[in-house]
Amino acid sequence: MKRHVYLEDIPLDEAQAAFRAALQATGWWQPLAAEEVPVAQAHGRITATAVWAKLSSPHYHASAMDGYALRAQDSEGATETQPLQFTLVENWETPPTEPRPIRPVNTGQPLPPWANAVVMIEHTQPVELANGRSGIEIRASLPPWQHVRPMGEDMVATELVLPANHKLRPVDLGALAGSGHATVSVYRQPRVAIIPTGSELVSAEVVAESGIQPGQIIEYNSMVLAAQVAEWGGLPTRWPIVPDEFNAIQTAVRQAAQNHDLILLNAGSSAGSEDYTAHVVQSLGQLLVHGVAVRPGHPVILGLLEIRDRKLGSENQSPISNLQSHIPIVGVPGYPVSAALTGEIFVEPLLARWQGQRPFQPQTITATLTRKLNSHTGDDDFVRVAVGEVNGRFVTTPISRGAGVITSLVRADGIVRIPRFSEGAEAGSDVTVHLYRDARELAQTILAIGSHDLTLDLIAQFLAERGGVRLASANVGSLGGLVALRRGECHLAGSHLLDPETGIYNQNYVRRYLPDEDVVALTLVGREQGWLVPPGNPNEIQGWAAAARDDVQFVNRQRGAGTRVLLDYELGKLGIQPEQVQGYGREEYTHLAVAAAVASGTADFGLGIQAAARALQLDFVPLAHEQYDLVMTRQTYESDRIWPLLDLLHDDDFKTAVAALPGYDVSVMGKTTEI
Amino acid sequence: MKRHVYLEDIPLDEAQAAFRAALQATGWWQPLAAEEVPVAQAHGRITATAVWAKLSSPHYHASAMDGYALRAQDSEGATETQPLQFTLVENWETPPTEPRPIRPVNTGQPLPPWANAVVMIEHTQPVELANGRSGIEIRASLPPWQHVRPMGEDMVATELVLPANHKLRPVDLGALAGSGHATVSVYRQPRVAIIPTGSELVSAEVVAESGIQPGQIIEYNSMVLAAQVAEWGGLPTRWPIVPDEFNAIQTAVRQAAQNHDLILLNAGSSAGSEDYTAHVVQSLGQLLVHGVAVRPGHPVILGLLEIRDRKLGSENQSPISNLQSHIPIVGVPGYPVSAALTGEIFVEPLLARWQGQRPFQPQTITATLTRKLNSHTGDDDFVRVAVGEVNGRFVTTPISRGAGVITSLVRADGIVRIPRFSEGAEAGSDVTVHLYRDARELAQTILAIGSHDLTLDLIAQFLAERGGVRLASANVGSLGGLVALRRGECHLAGSHLLDPETGIYNQNYVRRYLPDEDVVALTLVGREQGWLVPPGNPNEIQGWAAAARDDVQFVNRQRGAGTRVLLDYELGKLGIQPEQVQGYGREEYTHLAVAAAVASGTADFGLGIQAAARALQLDFVPLAHEQYDLVMTRQTYESDRIWPLLDLLHDDDFKTAVAALPGYDVSVMGKTTEI
Repeated sequence: MKRHVYLEDIPLDEAQAAFRAALQATGWWQPLAAEEVPVAQAHGRITATAVWAKLSSPHYHASAMDGYALRAQDSEGATETQPLQFTLVENWETPPTEPRPIRPVNTGQPLPPWANAVVMIEHTQPVELANGRSGIEIRASLPPWQHVRPMGEDMVATELVLPANHKLRPVDLGALAGSGHATVSVYRQPRVAIIPTGSELVSAEVVAESGIQPGQIIEYNSMVLAAQVAEWGGLPTRWPIVPDEFNAIQTAVRQAAQNHDLILLNAGSSAGSEDYTAHVVQSLGQLLVHGVAVRPGHPVILGLLEIRDRKLGSENQSPISNLQSHIPIVGVPGYPVSAALTGEIFVEPLLARWQGQRPFQPQTITATLTRKLNSHTGDDDFVRVAVGEVNGRFVTTPISRGAGVITSLVRADGIVRIPRFSEGAEAGSDVTVHLYRDARELAQTILAIGSHDLTLDLIAQFLAERGGVRLASANVGSLGGLVALRRGECHLAGSHLLDPETGIYNQNYVRRYLPDEDVVALTLVGREQGWLVPPGNPNEIQGWAAAARDDVQFVNRQRGAGTRVLLDYELGKLGIQPEQVQGYGREEYTHLAVAAAVASGTADFGLGIQAAARALQLDFVPLAHEQYDLVMTRQTYESDRIWPLLDLLHDDDFKTAVAALPGYDVSVMGKTTEI
Repeated sequence: MKRHVYLEDIPLDEAQAAFRAALQATGWWQPLAAEEVPVAQAHGRITATAVWAKLSSPHYHASAMDGYALRAQDSEGATETQPLQFTLVENWETPPTEPRPIRPVNTGQPLPPWANAVVMIEHTQPVELANGRSGIEIRASLPPWQHVRPMGEDMVATELVLPANHKLRPVDLGALAGSGHATVSVYRQPRVAIIPTGSELVSAEVVAESGIQPGQIIEYNSMVLAAQVAEWGGLPTRWPIVPDEFNAIQTAVRQAAQNHDLILLNAGSSAGSEDYTAHVVQSLGQLLVHGVAVRPGHPVILGLLEIRDRKLGSENQSPISNLQSHIPIVGVPGYPVSAALTGEIFVEPLLARWQGQRPFQPQTITATLTRKLNSHTGDDDFVRVAVGEVNGRFVTTPISRGAGVITSLVRADGIVRIPRFSEGAEAGSDVTVHLYRDARELAQTILAIGSHDLTLDLIAQFLAERGGVRLASANVGSLGGLVALRRGECHLAGSHLLDPETGIYNQNYVRRYLPDEDVVALTLVGREQGWLVPPGNPNEIQGWAAAARDDVQFVNRQRGAGTRVLLDYELGKLGIQPEQVQGYGREEYTHLAVAAAVASGTADFGLGIQAAARALQLDFVPLAHEQYDLVMTRQTYESDRIWPLLDLLHDDDFKTAVAALPGYDVSVMGKTTEI
C-alpha cells in the first residue's frame, strides 16, 4: 500500500499569487471572449464593451399625453373666461390652412411636423364651430413643447448607454433595446467541469432508492460546487462519480478539459493511499501548489493542464483572444466545509476575473467575540460564526470547527478570518465578520443560547413559515445559557435547572447568575426525562440506581446541562459517586447526540428526553418530569422582536405540533414567571 | 373616435388592499403548491416545508484522518521515549485476538467496530515486530474517539435541517443530500404571462433588421418585466406583440390565463381611444382598480379574471390547494419607468407571497437632498435619485422625472418615496433613499456635477473597464457645478467658464464661487465650440453675427452653462441683445440635446462642440477654442478615490480615445492649476 505523507502547505497569499502568475503567463488572467446575445436573454450577463446608443429615444417628437397637437403660438390669450376654438384637422405633413388647426394624438404618437405642443384631453371641450365643422375649445395658453417628449429626451444616438463590465439588470435591457440594440456583447460564461472522485461515493439518488452501507458517503460536494459556479455566473457541468483509479480520473480530466475552462477535481487532493489528484495533474501538466495553509481546506491543489485536443479553443468562440491550450485545475478537498470554502477562496475570484468583475466582497460588521478563539499559527483560519444583535450590539460565537460539518456552514451567519500570524482572539474582543446574511436579517433574529430542546426546532420552523423573525439557537447547556444571558450574548436562554432544595426549576439559578437583572421566565413545556436504551432494553436498565452498574456503559451530557444537573442530584440522593458510573466522562452536547451514541452501540444507555428516544427508535425508561423555560430579560420580553415567539406560545397549531412529540406536556406552555 | 377620459386614481395603499382582499377571497394570497425537485436542481428555490434529516451524517463512526484505527486503551503509556508497538491486522467485525491490534483507515472510512480511536499516519512509524509480523509504532497515548467523526456529528436523523420558506443556497444542497434527501419540496414557481399590446410597437429584432419609422416604438417593457419576474423567482412567458384590437387582446389574455398564474398586460391601461385593457378585464372578470395615485404609474389596472378552461388547475400540480379558476391580472402602464415601477410595487410582493417570502426590502440610507423636491399632493411619488458619498455624508439629487425616460432608472442609485400627504422636501433636508445599489458601491463612486462633455462618458467607460471606482455624472452646467462643489454635493465639477477680461478659463469663477476653498483645477481637454447646423449648412450660418438673423431659429443652452456664457460674451461684444436671437429662450441641457434639436429640424442652429455635430451627422462651423477643466477641492484631489481618474489623464490609451473625437485637443490633458 503506497502512502504519501507529504503536503507542502504554503501560505494562502503565496498560493494565490502562484496561481495568478501561472494564469497570467498563459493568458488566462483576463476576461473571456465576448459573445453577442439577444438583449431579451441578457439579464444577469456582463457587458464586454461599452454600449453606445444606435438610435435616439424617442427617435421623433412624441406626444407625452393623450390629447391634441397644435401650434403653441395659436393658443396665446386663451383663458377660462375667453376660451379659444380650434378646428379639427387630419393634416400630417402638409401644414393646415385653417387658422387654428388641432389634431388628436395619443400618448407616444408623433407630433405632426407643423405642431409644437400638446393639450391634454382633460383640458379640452368638443364644440361645433360656427362654420359647422367639429372643433375643440381650450381655456389656457400653452408654452412651446408642452407635453411633448422631444427626440432624444431619453437617449441621444451615440450617447453612452452602459459601460463595459456592467451586470445587466432588468431596466438595462430596456435601455439597450430602446437605443436600437437587438443584441448585446457580453462575456462568454465560464464553463466549469466538476468531477467527483472516490470509490466510497454514492449518489443521493442511489441512496434514496437502495439505502446506504457503512463506509459509503453520499456525494454532494459536486452539487454545492455546481450551485456556487452558477451563482458566480459560470456554467457548471457535474461529472458522474469517478472511482479512485488513476486511469479513470486521468481520462475524465482529459475529456473535461476539451470543452471547459476550469476543472474542479474533488477530492483525492490529500496524501492518502488513494489520493491521485496531484499525480493526475502532474501527468497532464504542471502542479503549481499542493497544500495551502488554510483551515479548513489544507489539501488544496492548484495546477495547469496542457491539453492538445482542446475543442473549445478551436471553435469560433475561442475562450480568450490569445488562443492556447492550458486549462487551470483546482484539486478541491473532500471535506464539505473545505470544499465550499475552496470554492469561495480560489474559484470565485477566477470566475469574477473571467467576467470583468472584481472578487465578491461580502458585507462586514464588527462584533464582540463571546468565546476565546484559538487559531493555529501559520494557518489562515476561516472560522464559521453565529452572529446576533443583542441590545444594539453585534455578538458573535464560533460554530463547530470540524471540516466535515456542513451544517456549520448552513447555520453560519458569517466567517471570521484569523490571519496566519495570529494565535486567535480573546473573548470580549472585537472581530470583523464577513457576513453570509444581510445584516438587516440579523436584526430580525432571536438568538437562543442554552439548553437544547426539540421544540426549539419547531419554533424555528413555525417562525420561518410565518415570516418576520428567525430563531437561531446554540446548545451550550442550561447554565451556559444563563451565563450568556448575563453577558448580553443572547436574547433568551433555554433552561431546565432543578433546585434540589425547593424542587422549583430555574428561579434560584437565575437569581444566582443574574442577580441584578429584571428577568422573565416563560415556560415552554413540561417533559419527561429517562434512560435512553436500545430497543427491548436488552440490559434491563431500570431506575436511577442502574447508573452504578459495572456491566453497562453510560454516555453523559456536558457540564452545565440541566440533564446533567438532574443526574448528579439523583446520584447524590443515592450516594453514587461519578467514578462508579462507567462512561461518566464521555460528554455529548444534545439529547440527540446521546441517543445517537446509544443507537450506534458505543454506549448502552444515557439520560435524555423521550422525543430523542423516539427519533432514533430507542426505548425509553421514564424517570422524572421536569420543566423547560425560556429565560429572558424584561427588556427583551417587552421588545418587538420577541412578540412573534410569544404569540406562538398561545397558538393552537403550535401546541398541537409540540404535543405530538412523545413525552411533552403543553398544559404549562406560556406561563410567565417574573424573577 | 371613442375617447374615455376617466381614471379613478385611488391611493396606493387602498389599491394594494383591494387587490389583496380580492386575492384572499379567491385563495390566491398564499404560497403556491409544493413540488418535489431533485436536490441538485433546487439551488435558489424555496422550501415549502421544513426538512428533517432522514439519515444521520456521518451515518457511521468515521475516521477523520488518514491513519490507523486502534483501541484507545491499548495506547495508554506510549511516550516519545517509550513507544508502543501495535500489530497490523485485517480484522473488521471480529475483534482481533492480537494484544495491540491496529488497522489502516483512510479519511471517511468506517472504524472497525472493535476500535475507538485513530492515530494520524504522520505520528506513526512502520516497524517489523519481534514475531516477524508487520507492526506500527506510536509515541503518544490517545484519548477515546480521537480523530473519529462520531455518527451524527454533523446531523442526527430526525433533526431539523432547514426550515420552510428558506431560499436554498449552495451549501444547503449539501446538507439536504447529506441527510438522505434526493429531492426536496419547494414551492412551484409562479408562471407569469407578459403580453405587450400596441399597434405602434415593433420588436428590437425587426428594428435591427429593417429600421424604424416615426410613430413606431421599440417594444422593450416585456423584456424588463420578464427579467424582473425571473429575478423574483417566477417563470416569465413573453407573448408576441398584440395589436390594439379588443378581440385580439381578449384572445391573448384568455389563452395566457389557461396555464399562467398571473398576467401582465402592457399597456392600454390608460383612458385613450385605443386603451382596451380595462374593457378586456371587465369582459373576462372583475375590474378591481383602474388608476392608482402614484407617480410615475397612474394608469395601473388591477383585476381578477374568471377563466373556465384553465389547464393549470386541472393538472396534478394544482396552483394552490384551494382549486379555483380566478387569475389575477395587472394592467401595466406603457411608459417604461411606470412599467418597471409597477413591477416593483405590485408584482414583486405578489410573487414573494406566492413563494412564502416577505416583500423585498431594499437597503436604505439617509441622505441630504441637494435640490428642492416638489411633489403633487395626493400622489405617492417615487422619485429616482442619484446618490453620492461626499466628505463622509450621503447627498442625493433627483434625476429627470419623466416616466418615459428609462435611463433615469438605469442611472438611479435609488428611489425617494414622497408620501401622498406631502408636498415634497426642501433642499438641505434629510430624506430616506431606498437603494438600487449596494451602499458600499456608492463609497467607490466619483460624483461629477457640472458641465457636460463627451469625454466624461469615455472616463466612465475606461474606469468601468478597469474596475475599482465608478464615475457618475449629472449635467447642470459649469456654474451649477461650482455651486454643487461649494455645497459639498459632488467630488468634482466639469467647467469651461471664460473670464472675458483675462481670457483665462475657470480661475476667476472658482475664486468667486469657492472663496474659502483650496481648489485644484485639472485640465481635461481643449475643444472647439461652433455652430451646429444641418448637413451642407443650408442657411449658410457663419460667424457670431448669425445669431441675430431673423430668418433662422436658434436653440440655446441653459443658464449657467459655459457654452451659454461664451455665447453671451460674444453677443455682448457684437452688441446683440438676447431678444434679437430667435429661439434664445429655448434651453437644452447638453450638447447632444442641442444637436438633436437641429437634427430633428425643430431648430436651425445651436452652439456646441464638434463631437456633438459629428455624433448626429451635422455640419460644424468652428468659432472658438476653449478649455475644459475638472475642478475639485484639494482634499478630493489627494483622496484615494480620485486616483484612478488622475491615472487616466496620463494614460495613452485614454488620450488616444479622446483624440479620436473630433475637435478635441489632448495636449493640455492633465495640467494641474492650484487656485
